[in-house]
Amino acid sequence: MTAGPRTVKARRLGLDAQSEAIVLLHRDSAICRSEGFSAHTRVQLRARGRIVVATLLSVISDLIAIDEAALSEAAWTRLALSEGDTIMIEHLDPVDSLSVLRSRIFGHVLNENGFRAIIGDIVAGRYSSIHIASFLTACAAPPLDEAEIFSLTRAMVDAGERLFWPQPVVVDKHSVGGLPGNRTTPIIVAIVTALGLTMPKTSSRAITSPAGTADMMETLAPVELSAAAIRHVVEAEGGCIAWGGAVQLSPADDILIRVERALDLDTQGQMIASVMSKKIAAGATHLVLDVPVGTTAKVRTAKDAEELSRGLLAVARDFGITARVVIGSGDEPVGRGIGPALEAQDVLAVLQRRPDAPADLRERAVRLAGVLIELAGLAPLNAGGALAMSILDNGRAWHKFQHICEAQGGMRTPPTSSHRQILTAPASGRLTAIDNRKIARLAKLAGAPEDRAAGVELLVRIGQDIKAGHNLCVVHAEAPGELDYALAYAAQHEDIFGIES
Amino acid sequence: MTAGPRTVKARRLGLDAQSEAIVLLHRDSAICRSEGFSAHTRVQLRARGRIVVATLLSVISDLIAIDEAALSEAAWTRLALSEGDTIMIEHLDPVDSLSVLRSRIFGHVLNENGFRAIIGDIVAGRYSSIHIASFLTACAAPPLDEAEIFSLTRAMVDAGERLFWPQPVVVDKHSVGGLPGNRTTPIIVAIVTALGLTMPKTSSRAITSPAGTADMMETLAPVELSAAAIRHVVEAEGGCIAWGGAVQLSPADDILIRVERALDLDTQGQMIASVMSKKIAAGATHLVLDVPVGTTAKVRTAKDAEELSRGLLAVARDFGITARVVIGSGDEPVGRGIGPALEAQDVLAVLQRRPDAPADLRERAVRLAGVLIELAGLAPLNAGGALAMSILDNGRAWHKFQHICEAQGGMRTPPTSSHRQILTAPASGRLTAIDNRKIARLAKLAGAPEDRAAGVELLVRIGQDIKAGHNLCVVHAEAPGELDYALAYAAQHEDIFGIES
Repeated sequence: MTAGPRTVKARRLGLDAQSEAIVLLHRDSAICRSEGFSAHTRVQLRARGRIVVATLLSVISDLIAIDEAALSEAAWTRLALSEGDTIMIEHLDPVDSLSVLRSRIFGHVLNENGFRAIIGDIVAGRYSSIHIASFLTACAAPPLDEAEIFSLTRAMVDAGERLFWPQPVVVDKHSVGGLPGNRTTPIIVAIVTALGLTMPKTSSRAITSPAGTADMMETLAPVELSAAAIRHVVEAEGGCIAWGGAVQLSPADDILIRVERALDLDTQGQMIASVMSKKIAAGATHLVLDVPVGTTAKVRTAKDAEELSRGLLAVARDFGITARVVIGSGDEPVGRGIGPALEAQDVLAVLQRRPDAPADLRERAVRLAGVLIELAGLAPLNAGGALAMSILDNGRAWHKFQHICEAQGGMRTPPTSSHRQILTAPASGRLTAIDNRKIARLAKLAGAPEDRAAGVELLVRIGQDIKAGHNLCVVHAEAPGELDYALAYAAQHEDIFGIES
Repeated sequence: MTAGPRTVKARRLGLDAQSEAIVLLHRDSAICRSEGFSAHTRVQLRARGRIVVATLLSVISDLIAIDEAALSEAAWTRLALSEGDTIMIEHLDPVDSLSVLRSRIFGHVLNENGFRAIIGDIVAGRYSSIHIASFLTACAAPPLDEAEIFSLTRAMVDAGERLFWPQPVVVDKHSVGGLPGNRTTPIIVAIVTALGLTMPKTSSRAITSPAGTADMMETLAPVELSAAAIRHVVEAEGGCIAWGGAVQLSPADDILIRVERALDLDTQGQMIASVMSKKIAAGATHLVLDVPVGTTAKVRTAKDAEELSRGLLAVARDFGITARVVIGSGDEPVGRGIGPALEAQDVLAVLQRRPDAPADLRERAVRLAGVLIELAGLAPLNAGGALAMSILDNGRAWHKFQHICEAQGGMRTPPTSSHRQILTAPASGRLTAIDNRKIARLAKLAGAPEDRAAGVELLVRIGQDIKAGHNLCVVHAEAPGELDYALAYAAQHEDIFGIES
């Protein structure tokens, strides 16, 4: 703080800027004039003994009064304000880690203290998205070396909460994203916990996809569990499928991911630190990593997948985690449903051993569960899959899943859509491709994930021979407007499905 | 555009986010729901045949109606809207140059087409500040090579307007910033135009400093001249001292500079492209570059100054500009005044040959004018300074300056402050340092540059022996509150003046 604070009255504006703290001040306010504050100045807001760093925007209309400060939701919530509270606004203290960032920008390798300083300031909200974008970019060239990835991962773990479990073996699983419908998690948790393993799984909600695992699971059971509730469910059932948002595991990751997506920048070092920091913070000792490879998936070539695997396994080893990577096909969505309830139907079909259950989802889940079973020492190499399959086939996994849902607050029936439309093939030929990104967008336009029953139900698989007029998929929506909107998108994008005559 | 547009009613919010276009939409609006828009989505606004790219923030209160879009000032102005106009909001078309940016991020050298694509998208507003931060960072490591700096400079020149002059010799001058009171420009213009040279000088307003040359000059004459008015003044008088904002010379530079400042990142390649693109666009053929070096100036060491000089001269040569760099002391402010009107008083004192005129300002201006005179061939090497001094001493420069002011719209008398306070030395000793950054901040707290008469008037120079209680400077303000505020800052920062006993 370089000069005395000034106070203004807090006003809630109802402005959602995600996690970004924004404060609006009148340009002619005493504080803007005397402090030299102008648009985009970074300021410290103090109230009720808390501090939040915010980006200032100035107002030149009567939208706010001269002695008011209007706050975005993130700032309001973090300061725990009530309407009209007095807040103090000051210049931001110098952010010391920016000199460390500058060193990386100019190509120097950072040590663990360097990453710790940067990640600490990011989690404390002292970096604007501009600074975060610069940090992510600076970590791309030269690429983070193995020691740097380790340091970054450790810094990210230490900046958040960490779960500790009494069991010596705690298994976990992560899928690198980009493949719609890839909902193996609930099936894997059910299989391995039925075998007595511990799998306290926390998952995310969708950020840009039509469904996150947490969104899907929420159509089957409550997922917003506190750390205490998670512990309670895991003690009773050996596992859970909960939303990770209530437990602050690697909060830096959530912040970095939003800027990475805005930049559309994935660097391998960041991706490894992101994945591993969450798993280490969750207390995993044995880990399977699912890396789907496909031209419209996140990892596009076998070479990229191998490099990523090496990096993930190196960090796992450094942290004493036993891990294996499963590289699989990422050419088309997994299962039939895309959207929370539709994906839940696929999961239920597999667990309930229904004859129409999607075979690809079942096979993926069994393969990944089998690896965890082998890593945990319950089956020899290459025998885990068969054991996993038997647990699915004899109904123990379905039985276990119902118990977990009950422990999380009670099993639910996924909602069904009120409006549907079938899309048909415009020409005859062989189905050679389904565009993961475009089919995901179609599901989102139909209302997923906010409308739980909305999305896309695939009726075909790659390799199938199709006649013109053949049913390709059903678009599900909860309102006619959204259905129309998705259909308009589909009409403009016939290349969602690649058909070669 | 990936799907059909949706329309909403435009509302002016009076939100100043500098050049950033922001649009607020209600989270529950049809368009947010159907398009999947959420906070920080980049969208295209269309109205009246124009397109503006904006960042979306969502509103969850009744601040705006469900069918309204509230726009920031930049977005409103660029779309030339009236209240209630219909605007269409769509997904942003893919920004093709982001793949070029990604290539630089991963350490690859870019060619001219690459820079042209990036700079074109930046000027068109298609880059958010996140992307710009990434671009600036990516240009730091590996550093831009000479060919890249040339390409970047050319791309920046071509993305804006360009002035062409009938005269074969057009002189110009640039000072690398960071030194308060360094207002040699009006004196140089007066001297060289009195000798018949052409010097159509465009200057900037303050961004973070207590005065830009345009702010200072505005206390002496109008500076907001159109391109036509600039041409008219230069035809009549051979030169001008105008604000550059009305003529769009290298508009990319203005955009990049704001993000550079937010990042506090100066890379040499960017700095060279920034300076040279403005000069090339302004039509300069002969150029003097003033590089002050000091621990609290922008360039801190002689080594940095030499490297910067080499880079600047290489680009000048590539573009056929005859240039020379003058590296000088940057240890303390130039002249006495810091703030628009106080600096104008220094300029007038030098031009009017007043006995109390600040010798350092006079010497710097004469030296730089002398270099231009030599470059233009009006004097042999090392003889330009004497010729410049004679033009100052015989009154021709003052005469010419008055004519230029008249041509720009009429000479003005700078305002004087209504509130003043002297700061005195807390101890006896030798004055060894004046902190350029802190003294600039003091002037800003007193109200500069918005309050034209506000600022700081220095009464001492480095090297002087001082007794406790000796007058160090006068703080000028236009309101008692701002005077008090500046004084509080001074009381907390006795190291503005370094006194060693």
